[in-house]
Amino acid sequence: MRTSIATVSLSGTLTEKLTAAARAGFDGVEIFENDLTGSPLGPEEIRERAADLGLTIDLFQPMRDIEAVPADEFARNLRRAEHKFRLMRRLGTGTVLVCSSVSPYAVDDDALAAEQLHRLAGLAQESGVRVAYEALAWGRHVSTYEHAWRIVEAADHPALGVCLDSFHILARGSDVTGIEAIPGDRIFFLQLADAPQMALDVLQWSRHHRCFPGQGDLDVAGLVRAAVRAGYDGPLSLEVFNDVFRQADAGRTAVDARRSLTLLQESAGLTAPPAPVVPTGFAFVEIATADTARIAPLLTALGFSRTARHSGKPVDLWEQGEARILLNTDTGSHRPDPSLTAVGLESPDPAGAAARAESLLAPVLPRRRAPGDAPLDAVAAPDGTEFFFCVTDGPGDGQRSGDAGRSGWTGDFAPTPHTPAPIGITRVDHVALTQPWHHFDEATLFHRGVLGLRPHASVDLADPYGLLRSRAASNEDGTVRIALGVGASPTEDPARGGRPQHVALLTDDLVTTVRRALAAGSRLLPVPANYYDDLAAHHEFAPGELETYRELGILYDRDEKGEFRHCYTVTTGRVFFELVERGGGYDGYGARNAPVRLAAQHALAE
Amino acid sequence: MRTSIATVSLSGTLTEKLTAAARAGFDGVEIFENDLTGSPLGPEEIRERAADLGLTIDLFQPMRDIEAVPADEFARNLRRAEHKFRLMRRLGTGTVLVCSSVSPYAVDDDALAAEQLHRLAGLAQESGVRVAYEALAWGRHVSTYEHAWRIVEAADHPALGVCLDSFHILARGSDVTGIEAIPGDRIFFLQLADAPQMALDVLQWSRHHRCFPGQGDLDVAGLVRAAVRAGYDGPLSLEVFNDVFRQADAGRTAVDARRSLTLLQESAGLTAPPAPVVPTGFAFVEIATADTARIAPLLTALGFSRTARHSGKPVDLWEQGEARILLNTDTGSHRPDPSLTAVGLESPDPAGAAARAESLLAPVLPRRRAPGDAPLDAVAAPDGTEFFFCVTDGPGDGQRSGDAGRSGWTGDFAPTPHTPAPIGITRVDHVALTQPWHHFDEATLFHRGVLGLRPHASVDLADPYGLLRSRAASNEDGTVRIALGVGASPTEDPARGGRPQHVALLTDDLVTTVRRALAAGSRLLPVPANYYDDLAAHHEFAPGELETYRELGILYDRDEKGEFRHCYTVTTGRVFFELVERGGGYDGYGARNAPVRLAAQHALAE
Repeated sequence: MRTSIATVSLSGTLTEKLTAAARAGFDGVEIFENDLTGSPLGPEEIRERAADLGLTIDLFQPMRDIEAVPADEFARNLRRAEHKFRLMRRLGTGTVLVCSSVSPYAVDDDALAAEQLHRLAGLAQESGVRVAYEALAWGRHVSTYEHAWRIVEAADHPALGVCLDSFHILARGSDVTGIEAIPGDRIFFLQLADAPQMALDVLQWSRHHRCFPGQGDLDVAGLVRAAVRAGYDGPLSLEVFNDVFRQADAGRTAVDARRSLTLLQESAGLTAPPAPVVPTGFAFVEIATADTARIAPLLTALGFSRTARHSGKPVDLWEQGEARILLNTDTGSHRPDPSLTAVGLESPDPAGAAARAESLLAPVLPRRRAPGDAPLDAVAAPDGTEFFFCVTDGPGDGQRSGDAGRSGWTGDFAPTPHTPAPIGITRVDHVALTQPWHHFDEATLFHRGVLGLRPHASVDLADPYGLLRSRAASNEDGTVRIALGVGASPTEDPARGGRPQHVALLTDDLVTTVRRALAAGSRLLPVPANYYDDLAAHHEFAPGELETYRELGILYDRDEKGEFRHCYTVTTGRVFFELVERGGGYDGYGARNAPVRLAAQHALAE
Repeated sequence: MRTSIATVSLSGTLTEKLTAAARAGFDGVEIFENDLTGSPLGPEEIRERAADLGLTIDLFQPMRDIEAVPADEFARNLRRAEHKFRLMRRLGTGTVLVCSSVSPYAVDDDALAAEQLHRLAGLAQESGVRVAYEALAWGRHVSTYEHAWRIVEAADHPALGVCLDSFHILARGSDVTGIEAIPGDRIFFLQLADAPQMALDVLQWSRHHRCFPGQGDLDVAGLVRAAVRAGYDGPLSLEVFNDVFRQADAGRTAVDARRSLTLLQESAGLTAPPAPVVPTGFAFVEIATADTARIAPLLTALGFSRTARHSGKPVDLWEQGEARILLNTDTGSHRPDPSLTAVGLESPDPAGAAARAESLLAPVLPRRRAPGDAPLDAVAAPDGTEFFFCVTDGPGDGQRSGDAGRSGWTGDFAPTPHTPAPIGITRVDHVALTQPWHHFDEATLFHRGVLGLRPHASVDLADPYGLLRSRAASNEDGTVRIALGVGASPTEDPARGGRPQHVALLTDDLVTTVRRALAAGSRLLPVPANYYDDLAAHHEFAPGELETYRELGILYDRDEKGEFRHCYTVTTGRVFFELVERGGGYDGYGARNAPVRLAAQHALAE
């Protein structure tokens, strides 16, 4: 099916919006009246510009407060409509959206509404225009699609049909199966938007919090399926009012939108992009740093050994158990400080994962390849982090052959002599990536749709200087966990040197691991004594247990499934490490302790 | 009555919060548990720090999910409470807040709640602590203050009373007169917060959108009056959860908070600061600019003449009708571009206005005075704009004497030879001031409380790159109008060189004025042709009228009271001018046309 996007969903001038929509691969646009009114281009010029970009203009919107009004009011409305139909002819668009009236003059009279819409459709037909009537969820008398359809049916004019808007329908909790009773050729248009579930006035909810399908909680795919079953074959069009998209770069938003639409089509069974490939573990985490003087001692103190060096690039492999960290000193001058730049995901099908990513408009990175190197498929996430789809050959810990004939990425590394001194770390538990301020939903959809991870619930974390939002995504068995975080304000964007990222390392016995780390010279984040007083008030501990935590600076959490112990290193550059032990089936990230951690990090930074 | 503020209302570390509260003149604080837990200072150190700052610790908060639970759960709760009571003794605070339970284990059994609260109060009393029980608006079984009071009454323990929270009470629309039935000495605490009226889930509403009294829509003063009539004589304490305050500078927020509390006390009849002095007009608008090369020709083309020069400073007075603009070239190097820096308000009592401003913590500016100068009282608004309280001597238009013995500010100016060439401007209609991102509510309260203006409704304006919020404040007859605006993101802060400010100039005949302005060389903002097509669709005009608007770039609006015609100059530095004609009783600012104006300004800036 053809894809379309409303200009109101993108920021900038109309020209910028058209360009962004075309570049992201949309087939058409809905033009919002304000965008046209504010444009220095005349309707004919806009029509040409769209055609040059390969875009059709699928809808002009909206006309409001037309129907079920007194005769003199309706006469004025027809006059207005005539102006707009003329404009549409110049613009080359054949369908106009008419929203159900919110006018105080509108009366609750379906027969009058039908009669006036019939007359409007007649006028439209003369200009070659079709009228798509849509029930606003807050329409004065008409607020459900069933009601709008009854009126359209009664009006009985070939130039009159309905427009279905997923937000207006799903926000009211309407049953979408009724859509199948509408003849497909009378559904003139389908507008799609998702939204997070909110107990908010529906008008405010709609105007400020719509998002692209898959980024909210509404079953947009179910509605699309119903419309398709009804026989609808017009465009799938995104119409999203969102305060964030109004500010974000139009090109970026359009790509996010188009990705969302592909995933929606996949959910609705309309397209079949390459199947998702769920990663099975972390192959590596890469830290870029101009020199290793600061980070190498830190890794050593955490029990890592430098086991191998890349055959062609200044990249060292550090290992402990199944935890692998690459230190890349080929950073250019713009990243002097250690920062987390890439994540290797263990993939059962790297080529398949890359193909899916590409079909979902993820920027595919040039393969990093030197003569003899294993090719590595990689894409860039919305925050700029590079994700590599990898196969790691066993065995680990520097015992590899360096045989260039092997399939895994480790084949490119030549072992270096080293003396392992592990402290009990078994693997990477999770990585925590700070997202650009405006792009949290985009990131979540990316991690779900492109990387095949399952998003968990979003939580708010109280920092001394604002609320942070955090949302994890993981595979089913928890061997890949990525915590996406977003700062309290745009000034905390990663690009502006905002909040640090971190790598959490798993151990089966945190107390022993921490003792060894401290003995090896690790500097851990100090935890205030008040925290342990609070912990003592909340939980009972075995004799000596709490004292051990206090002594070592270990944080503690408990839920119905198990226990969580964790602690943090101090921050180096833009990176810090967390050491974690998961007891029982604890599936969280110690969110309860985040305020204490954040306060301690601020205190140390001062 | 004593004043207090909850630490959760301010950003930063506990130390920063205590310092900010003390500096703003609060008598005490409520300490929020998270602030203490995350602090590197122990309870005794916090107690000392507060005492050094002259602050009492009036409340420790909160304890949750205590009452009406099964026996084993309650035993755990008492254990937790015992820990916290010990902590409170170390902290030196005598009252603890207990919120009505939201626990899934809580049962709907008032007798059990009363019995358990009685036991809790007994335990508290042993530690010298009183328990203030508060109904959360979303409490599982207890959600109204009347219900909380019934349980407290039944529990019948001297160490148990109620805490009244204006948000929880008013958000539910409860009748506050019932408060007067509670004996004053059983009201242990009074927490005050306002909030904008929102149809939002009350928990989300409370957590993110509370604001200081007078910044929202709740009748907080009415509740305070009821509590005082009941005999309450404890602190008036602000407890505001707000996403903005979490990020804003604590010192600034504390001043805003303290100002709000003074205005609340005034509304409730508890204090009488110097009475408000409502301004009666604009005395002048001051534009600072390193040199006048860009702005002087623009003023000339708008029909202004340089009529006088200040006797001791590089400040020129430009006049037309009753519109007066000061060009100040004594700007220092940090403001090379023309920017709107000061507004002179015609005041019936400048000294009284300044006294009120000072009592409301407005930063009073050093009087600008040279030998022989009239002293001018001035304060700084939250956005940095300087407001002068003035008396302007007549007659205008450069006919003044320069006599140093006169009372008005114009006495300091010496007339300069000039040839008036007015284009029909009669006076300043309004000034539009861009506010810092986080400080819109603070600004509104300032303009109301300190300057004595009446705030109008807030409107959203669609800019191509985000929604702007705008809210006007005016005196009764509309001779002083200030439009406060805020950009779509923090990057649009005035301090960061964000959106321009503007001065709107009134004329009785815009068409004639614009023709003269154009003839004199004014450059006006071009308006897209599409705008006039849209206007033609919406309104009927006299023959030729629309064509005139189109020719001259005049925007048009109409409401039930009258008509509004306006147009804009291009922007110079950080300032542009608007020319407006108000027909009939039109009382707005042409918000409907703002998207077109904003799009045109963006187009021109590119």
